[in-house]
Formats: sequence, structure tokens, C-alpha cells
Amino acid sequence: MNSLSDPFEATENERLAQIYTAAAELFCEKGFDGTSMSAVAEMVGITKAGIYHFIPGGKKDLLFAIMSYGLDRLDTHVITPAHAIPDAEERLRSIINNHVRLITSGSKTGGHNPVTIVVEEVGGLSPTHRRKIDQRKRVYVELIRDTLKQLKQDGKLQAVDETVAAFSLLGIILWISRWYDPDGRLSAEQVADEIMKLALGSLLRPQTQQAHH
Amino acid sequence: MNSLSDPFEATENERLAQIYTAAAELFCEKGFDGTSMSAVAEMVGITKAGIYHFIPGGKKDLLFAIMSYGLDRLDTHVITPAHAIPDAEERLRSIINNHVRLITSGSKTGGHNPVTIVVEEVGGLSPTHRRKIDQRKRVYVELIRDTLKQLKQDGKLQAVDETVAAFSLLGIILWISRWYDPDGRLSAEQVADEIMKLALGSLLRPQTQQAHH
Repeated sequence: MNSLSDPFEATENERLAQIYTAAAELFCEKGFDGTSMSAVAEMVGITKAGIYHFIPGGKKDLLFAIMSYGLDRLDTHVITPAHAIPDAEERLRSIINNHVRLITSGSKTGGHNPVTIVVEEVGGLSPTHRRKIDQRKRVYVELIRDTLKQLKQDGKLQAVDETVAAFSLLGIILWISRWYDPDGRLSAEQVADEIMKLALGSLLRPQTQQAHH
Repeated sequence: MNSLSDPFEATENERLAQIYTAAAELFCEKGFDGTSMSAVAEMVGITKAGIYHFIPGGKKDLLFAIMSYGLDRLDTHVITPAHAIPDAEERLRSIINNHVRLITSGSKTGGHNPVTIVVEEVGGLSPTHRRKIDQRKRVYVELIRDTLKQLKQDGKLQAVDETVAAFSLLGIILWISRWYDPDGRLSAEQVADEIMKLALGSLLRPQTQQAHH
């Protein structure tokens, strides 16, 4: 927020993050069709010429750039830390906690996380870009599914199909971007705790869970 | 499919359903921006003049019309049957089963349900239309939340926050529209069973569940 109020202090990367977030917010509000590069520039407080310095390809490139930015953040804050954890249950807890925090921390008053929502927009990408985004999403699904498979080998997984379970967990977490309001009744921490309880309640066998209470 | 191959036998309502489904599919594929009324008309096998008979307001009205159609189907197949069930656990099972079936039955090869996805698109609606759609979605969230509250009174709910639990259930179910492939490994029935296990596993107390196995 500091760098937003003083745009001259923003580094190149901070400025790009501001642009992606502002553009995602406008897409959620007015649709892709109803959002102009000028409106994005105005929201970030730079000139229309200035925004083309950052996004030379214009609006057509912006959708792919926002999705890549969102998936970069997922890499940094969720996927990379998870890879460092050998124990499957610990890794699952880390994935849930970090991903929930990533979404709640980027959520806006009134209840939505624009970047997370735009990452899941369908349509509007060129086939090449779409393949790239789909490939990155698949990597994350595989990480979750492999973690569930390992939990099964450890005798800790409920009798559930790992694929359906992986997508269900993803549905629970990604849906937070549609309803979580940072000014609402529940703090980010409470939401993370509730999601952890709900997710583990459906995935882990009762005795495994109790050992952690 | 029959009425699609012989358009002259389709009734007005069937034709509208075809138009909404085709338009939703094109939106998911090419984005709202990249979809023309002619492309929708061509997909349904009617003339461009013909499609304006059904959708006089053109593309601008189409998004709201698809969402209303999707929510009408939710009303008919999920909400109305649920209201007829006084027992909370039975009502919850009915909501899950009927909503999962609604999504899997409208899913396309390759893995998505275009109408369900478009209902959850954000942006692109006029403020009046948006309020109407949001209001209808809220009614459904309230139905689920009230059912969970009743389960709590019955002593059957896990120690979870009813609001987070309601949205998590919704996330699990709605996310099916992004990954379920009718030509994939799992049948619609198997997916419904797995989702039921996962959802009830996180929501119902263990003894309640076991009594139903």
C-alpha cells in the first residue's frame, strides 16, 4: 500500500504487481471487455504511455501476465515450501495453510481475491498461452495428488479417490477467493483454521487427526 | 442431442437451452470478448436473424440470460427438492447428490460444465443484473447454511463454523465443473459417491456417518 501511494518509489517488480492486481480487480468488476488499459493505468496512477512500458503487448497480454503472476506467487509461497517437506501429512498441512494465507492476504474488502479469480478464468487466452497455464496448474494438482498417494501408503488417508480428493481440496481453497472478506466476521487466521479442520476431516483417518489435536 | 440434430422439432424452451449452452461453451473457449452472436447461431444451427428472435438484446443480455438459466436449473433440480425434506441430514445429502448430478450431467468431453462455469463468472454484468444474480446465489448459500445450523442443533455437525463449511461445500461441488470429464476414468455415479464421502467426512460427526454406512 505504501508503494501505491508513492509510485515513484516502486521498483519495476512492485509496479508490475500493482498493475496486475489493479487489472484483475477491474476485470472482476467490469469484465475483460469493459476494462481499458487507460482504466488500469489510472487505477495505478501512471500515464497510458507508462503502462505500455510495462505491458508492451497491451490488453491481450495482460490476461496471461496476470495468470502467470498468480501462478508465480503460488510457486513461491506454496509449491516450493511444500517440496522441502518429506512427510506427507506435514506437507499437506503446509500446502493448505500457505495457499489459504496466499488467498486471504490478497483479498479485497467486500469479499474477493481478484488475482486468484482471474487465474481461474477460462477463455480469452491464445491456445499457446492456455497450454502453458494449464500445464502449470497440472503441476500443482499433481503435487497434491502425490501427497495424498503418499498419505495412503502411510495408512493415513481415508478411503477416498485421490484424484477427486485433490480437486475437492483445490475447490475448497480456491473458492475462498470468492467469499472471504478481510473486514468480515472471521480473521484470516480463523478461516485458515476452519479450512484446515474441514479439509483434514475429509482426508485423514480419525486416529491420525486426533494424534495432532 | 436429438433436438439439436433436428432443430425444427425443438420447442422454444429447448431452443433457448441450446442457445445458452452453446454460448456458454464458446465463452469458456474463446472468452466473452471473442464470441460473436453469429458464432452462437452457427453452433446451434440457426440464422443470425433467428438468434435475435430468441435473444433480442444481443450479446449484452446473453451473459445474464445464461446465468439465470443456470440458476433456474439449480432451483428446479436442487433447491426445490431440498425444501421438501424436513430432516437436515437427509436434506444435506439431497443437496449434494442433486447438485453434483446437475453438474456432471451438463459436462463436456475434456472436462468442463460451461453453464455452471459461466454462472460463476464475475464482471461483465450491469449493476442491476449483478444484484439479481448475487441475490439468487445468496439464497442457495443460506439454504446450505441453515441446513448445517439445523444439523448442529441435532448434534450431528462437527465443530466447524457453519459459514466456512457452507462455502467449502459449495467450493467442492462447483469446482467439479472445472475437472469432471464424462469420458474420464470415473462415472458420474462414482464422482457423486466420492464427493458425498468427502463432504460428509468433513461435516458430520463420525458416529452419525457410521450409522449410515
